[in-house]
Amino acid sequence: MLAAIEEAQSGGAEGGIPVGSVIVHRGKVIGRGHNRRIQQGSVIRHGEMDAFENAGRQPAQVYRESVLYTTLSPCAMCSGAILLYGIPKVVVGENLTFMGEEEWLRSRGVEVTVLQDPVCMDLMQTFIAKNPELWHEDIGETPA
Amino acid sequence: MLAAIEEAQSGGAEGGIPVGSVIVHRGKVIGRGHNRRIQQGSVIRHGEMDAFENAGRQPAQVYRESVLYTTLSPCAMCSGAILLYGIPKVVVGENLTFMGEEEWLRSRGVEVTVLQDPVCMDLMQTFIAKNPELWHEDIGETPA
Repeated sequence: MLAAIEEAQSGGAEGGIPVGSVIVHRGKVIGRGHNRRIQQGSVIRHGEMDAFENAGRQPAQVYRESVLYTTLSPCAMCSGAILLYGIPKVVVGENLTFMGEEEWLRSRGVEVTVLQDPVCMDLMQTFIAKNPELWHEDIGETPA
Repeated sequence: MLAAIEEAQSGGAEGGIPVGSVIVHRGKVIGRGHNRRIQQGSVIRHGEMDAFENAGRQPAQVYRESVLYTTLSPCAMCSGAILLYGIPKVVVGENLTFMGEEEWLRSRGVEVTVLQDPVCMDLMQTFIAKNPELWHEDIGETPA
């Protein structure tokens, strides 16, 4: 989770949305990434998606032995990628800022652990306070 | 749907997995794309995801007035992206080769229409017969 937080912090330092993710296969990091909406104008590179992409093409068996760490609860798109590739275990930094599709993941047999980590939470709260419109855009919402 | 089939065919002509997708806002194409696993070594650029990415950053309201056309039933990842951005209507070329998360989409209020189009089906069947391992990789499965 520390590596995922590092990713979130480096995304934040680039002016991006501070969500980071790491995919670990048998104790070794095979992919890491962070949200690239601002940096690359990407609407599909949430932190988790960026980690999947940076891990590259992996055999199905590798995904099935991997753990995905993410600083924020995974949205529908990222949860779908987790299910598509059969990741069995997800560790979430926090889900108070945003509650993703954790129940859907659990209903499909994924083990989801939530840490409610104050560092992850502070990264998001600070970002959202300054950039509410970017955050709403990232989750497909219209700002209130 | 013809534009989505064109995308699938051009992906196939590049040696890629022949799935194409188009996002239409109020009658105008705002994004089109096709699966880029082979061409770009991408594990997140399914046809629908490529169309989202090529449409670029859009206001939430635009997604909510758009229709997504895809030649093949959308997998968990692509269905998640459809829900994240609140696309209300999805037109699917066929779901006999692969049944995606259509029921999940419908349960969240998305209108899903399936055409069972023979051209879409033939594209996939021809590709899978020649490249079963690439197809299995694309849906996170181990070949039998």
